[in-house]
Amino acid sequence: MLKRKVILAIADGVGDRPHPLLNHETPLEYAQTPNLDYLATRGITGMMNLISPGIPVGTDMGHLILFGYQPHHYPGRGPIEALGIGMTIKPGDVVLRCNFATVDEKGIVIDRRAGRIRRQTNLIAEAVSGMVIDGVEVYVKEATEHRAVLVLRGEGLSEKISDSDPKAPNDGVPYLEVEPLDASEESIRTASIVNRFLIQAHEILMHHPVNQERMEQGKLPANFILTRGAGRMAELEPIAEQFQIRGSCIAGESTVLGVAQLAGFKMITDSRMTGNIDTDIHLKAKLAIEQIAENDIVYVHMKAPDVKGHDNLPFEKAKAIELFDQMVGNILQMLQDDTYLALAADHSTPCEIGEHTGDPVPILIYGPSIRRDRVMAYNELDCAYGGLGHMSGTDFVRTLHGLMGIVKKQGN
Amino acid sequence: MLKRKVILAIADGVGDRPHPLLNHETPLEYAQTPNLDYLATRGITGMMNLISPGIPVGTDMGHLILFGYQPHHYPGRGPIEALGIGMTIKPGDVVLRCNFATVDEKGIVIDRRAGRIRRQTNLIAEAVSGMVIDGVEVYVKEATEHRAVLVLRGEGLSEKISDSDPKAPNDGVPYLEVEPLDASEESIRTASIVNRFLIQAHEILMHHPVNQERMEQGKLPANFILTRGAGRMAELEPIAEQFQIRGSCIAGESTVLGVAQLAGFKMITDSRMTGNIDTDIHLKAKLAIEQIAENDIVYVHMKAPDVKGHDNLPFEKAKAIELFDQMVGNILQMLQDDTYLALAADHSTPCEIGEHTGDPVPILIYGPSIRRDRVMAYNELDCAYGGLGHMSGTDFVRTLHGLMGIVKKQGN
Repeated sequence: MLKRKVILAIADGVGDRPHPLLNHETPLEYAQTPNLDYLATRGITGMMNLISPGIPVGTDMGHLILFGYQPHHYPGRGPIEALGIGMTIKPGDVVLRCNFATVDEKGIVIDRRAGRIRRQTNLIAEAVSGMVIDGVEVYVKEATEHRAVLVLRGEGLSEKISDSDPKAPNDGVPYLEVEPLDASEESIRTASIVNRFLIQAHEILMHHPVNQERMEQGKLPANFILTRGAGRMAELEPIAEQFQIRGSCIAGESTVLGVAQLAGFKMITDSRMTGNIDTDIHLKAKLAIEQIAENDIVYVHMKAPDVKGHDNLPFEKAKAIELFDQMVGNILQMLQDDTYLALAADHSTPCEIGEHTGDPVPILIYGPSIRRDRVMAYNELDCAYGGLGHMSGTDFVRTLHGLMGIVKKQGN
Repeated sequence: MLKRKVILAIADGVGDRPHPLLNHETPLEYAQTPNLDYLATRGITGMMNLISPGIPVGTDMGHLILFGYQPHHYPGRGPIEALGIGMTIKPGDVVLRCNFATVDEKGIVIDRRAGRIRRQTNLIAEAVSGMVIDGVEVYVKEATEHRAVLVLRGEGLSEKISDSDPKAPNDGVPYLEVEPLDASEESIRTASIVNRFLIQAHEILMHHPVNQERMEQGKLPANFILTRGAGRMAELEPIAEQFQIRGSCIAGESTVLGVAQLAGFKMITDSRMTGNIDTDIHLKAKLAIEQIAENDIVYVHMKAPDVKGHDNLPFEKAKAIELFDQMVGNILQMLQDDTYLALAADHSTPCEIGEHTGDPVPILIYGPSIRRDRVMAYNELDCAYGGLGHMSGTDFVRTLHGLMGIVKKQGN
């Protein structure tokens, strides 16, 4: 166990721009945040570009960096999604993102989302998971709504294959045969395995009780699996092993939890952490304090600010920020003297844009003997004058690791 | 001779954190530093991470960068130590760090430090230095206390060899035969040369008058040389040649002087420069002014702040800083109009940590037509608001070189 520990509270997508509905303040400026501002007054602040100024990052990439990886370690969206839904992914696995879909007897895609199926997809996934084709194990697991993940595990595989998903804006086109994208034996073989799987799965799903029931109710059957975005899981040393630290991540969102697992951190979740504004902040704060007692670093994540940014709801985003402030206040009340409390975001999601942008996000570190700067509020404008200056996500995380005493000295 | 010159005063390890004994000020904030603050008021300031935020660096690495090298030029600890004790090291030399040790007739290590021998190690080193084994010259020179450095010079050598030092926490294990760490002819040959040297040295040392005397006094004889950490000196173009400049370094510490020699700068030292708080600051200031008359850049180094940081003596660190302030004041009084006076540190050594940390250090440049910022004190908090911003050590040195007019224009 290290002498100094870190709790990093992440307000997903909190970075914003001045909004006309908020008197041209940002949601962070507009919200009442006595706890965040207390930390700013007693701590050191700055601005962070996760990768570099102007580059928007996804939640997965943002957290990959906040957990201690470099941007080039990004393993692709498929592996991240698989981890997010609790699949075990091994280096070398080929991972495809899928939709449960409806095709007719000629293979024409009637609906890419099988009537936006939401229920019993776990039964459908189970029915087609676990096959072995040409020595390769094939696993399927349902994700949210009509989505699923397909994992191929075995020797001699390649991710250089095309999509079976025609992704036509209006359906009514046939699904595509999967083709190798290069001339390698591995790609030819992998494409053939996926094609065989698609047909076998179709045969199983056509007669599956869930689909029988759906058809009886006049719903579209989930009788086909459309695949896209094949990626291969890289050999990534978990951050926890690399630095010989114990960590955990408290979150309601599966993507964040998946990346945490990749980093070798324990996933702490609960149905009361909803990934939205009704999340249980008292539970999160309590768990953060419990977890830091037996770990070196604890990440505690709140999704709601991002959700409200995507929906251009600046008042609700400010409300979500006030909840984040309360959560941080609860943690602060129970914080031990040996623990730094840091604030960050994975990216900006300005309400008026409704998407992730490359605007920098405010960062803050409070705790034992920290160099205090003159900034007294945690927001995008004040923290631009902070004593940490402007730094990359990697530099911010290394700064935290430095305070923990786990960065190797260069030279003697 | 260039039109503009630089004197860079380096306060070793001066960067710190707020300390409870100093009313939660850093030693730099707490100390009375009228001269440093005068320079801050008239100059431009900023913060520097020698390599990157959070990375602690050693004194050798820190100075390597301040003298103008990149971190990847670090030649390894052995070569640095050899340079520090005044040995001449040539590119291609294999350098090993050594202990004078005591072994019994069976080769069991009785004491890895030969009873912590401190005196007459120069005579012991001389007795085994200068051999030629298989065409390779072998040099030994004593370092501090029981330490020494071994240099192998000749064709066909390799640094890929194991240690003879068993480094057992409790002694009583035999010394290890040196083995090649790869299958190359060079490694096999180098290991064999070191093994032959160890035996020949042992035979000489067993009967050496210094050891005879020690045994008569009931002390352990320094009858063996344990080797470790073989490194090979890289081909490094001296900075002085690279930029066609003349430089010198005024310091009491051998490591700093060794790195200065590597960079092609003249080493200026004197027994009155002690490497501690009793160092002669007036002499250093006088030499700095004398040296800048005939050089383009002069480094003047003070070790005491680092020493007091390692010992967690915040008041004494503040005192050491006040001495540094006086030294800088003396230099300032005699400074010519064509010369910049710059301040920096090689790393932070916060008292409460007692070790080098990756916290950034304050930097300052004062001199002809410098862009003045609004900062009026030289310390870790004020300089975070400085006009130079936050930069790497390499960028800081290039900024100084730029002011000297020795940085090559890119494009036309």
